[in-house]
Amino acid sequence: MGENSKKTKKVSVKSAAYMPEVSPAVIKRLPRYFRYLREVIRQGKTRVSSAELSKMMNVTASQIRQDLNCFGGFGQQGYGYNVNFLYTKICEILGVGCGFRALVIGAGNLGSALVKSSMFDKRGVDVVAMVDVRENIIGKTIGDVTVYKMDDLEELCEKFEVDIVILTLPKENATAAAQKLLNTKVKGIWNFTGKELDLGDSHIVVENEHIGDSLMTLCYEIARREEDL
Amino acid sequence: MGENSKKTKKVSVKSAAYMPEVSPAVIKRLPRYFRYLREVIRQGKTRVSSAELSKMMNVTASQIRQDLNCFGGFGQQGYGYNVNFLYTKICEILGVGCGFRALVIGAGNLGSALVKSSMFDKRGVDVVAMVDVRENIIGKTIGDVTVYKMDDLEELCEKFEVDIVILTLPKENATAAAQKLLNTKVKGIWNFTGKELDLGDSHIVVENEHIGDSLMTLCYEIARREEDL
Repeated sequence: MGENSKKTKKVSVKSAAYMPEVSPAVIKRLPRYFRYLREVIRQGKTRVSSAELSKMMNVTASQIRQDLNCFGGFGQQGYGYNVNFLYTKICEILGVGCGFRALVIGAGNLGSALVKSSMFDKRGVDVVAMVDVRENIIGKTIGDVTVYKMDDLEELCEKFEVDIVILTLPKENATAAAQKLLNTKVKGIWNFTGKELDLGDSHIVVENEHIGDSLMTLCYEIARREEDL
Repeated sequence: MGENSKKTKKVSVKSAAYMPEVSPAVIKRLPRYFRYLREVIRQGKTRVSSAELSKMMNVTASQIRQDLNCFGGFGQQGYGYNVNFLYTKICEILGVGCGFRALVIGAGNLGSALVKSSMFDKRGVDVVAMVDVRENIIGKTIGDVTVYKMDDLEELCEKFEVDIVILTLPKENATAAAQKLLNTKVKGIWNFTGKELDLGDSHIVVENEHIGDSLMTLCYEIARREEDL
């Protein structure tokens, strides 16, 4: 990470990933397969059956077979799936091998929690810089990422060839920050601010993260169970 | 929050919420409706049409009508939905009025970011305490929540009548922490550790938060667009 990452070779998306047509519903489930297959690999297994995956993931075995058939059906009856092959394939489809570079706006608690987590490493995303408006933290490092001036955002995006910008700044500043990115080569925004971004017909992909949604799902489940009692 | 919350009146789930049968797919979408309706209320509107919601939420108007019909169909053609009524109903279904109390395990960056956010207030959840193993932060307050000793976890859950425990501690300690909760009256765990918890046939509902999943969805979308070019 940091300065060195400028030298990391970027893998072209085209050459890295052959992308078959996979339905959006299956795509949504792929990150889960990614996580579970990592776990299986860590356990030293080279084969896994749909029944085993089914038990681990709490999804029916038939759903798993159907999902994995979408991109080529690498399972063999009575023999299971080749874990490494499946993992590699899912990584390709999800763009894990693309060497995307990320910059985090906001070096507060959330930004710091994100860069210190192993989340990016695991997914082949390189966090190259953070920016903040608070003068007293400019130049510091969080995890192993340096904090730069928010004023230099566009310049940093160019210098570090940033693909993904992660918004962890206050909601009221989200739109202004996103607007600045329209003139850069940034390809995606991961938005934690809770502010819906309207970037018109921009080339930038926006993924909104609403952590609170799953708090509500949890509250619902609890209330539901209490009612059942 | 803090000590005072012990005195907050808890609303019984049974009396607060009449829960019609709503499909899991609709339930999953309700937190989004909750967020958008809050926004509409903030804009001072008392009526909203399915077409307006459709535009805001990027969902078809027919999907919205179908979803909202599930719990009674409060829309009137050419007149739209009564925003406050709809919002109140969704809050009831989601258990927003239940006065759930939460305790956060782990007062690091993620735990701090969570308690400082407005997420809990908005959803009627009261964060009553945090716990950590690091002696040097015991007794401090983060946001307006006091940090207590991890050793006192069970006692604190009883004292504060905790309903929800939020796990932001390191992955390797997640299972031990969850096990401790089995003998308490805690009803739900919101799990940020990335460790899958197996609590057998416990009464505790677990909601796993995998923030990294949406990073992968974003990477996928970017890679996909690059391929299309």
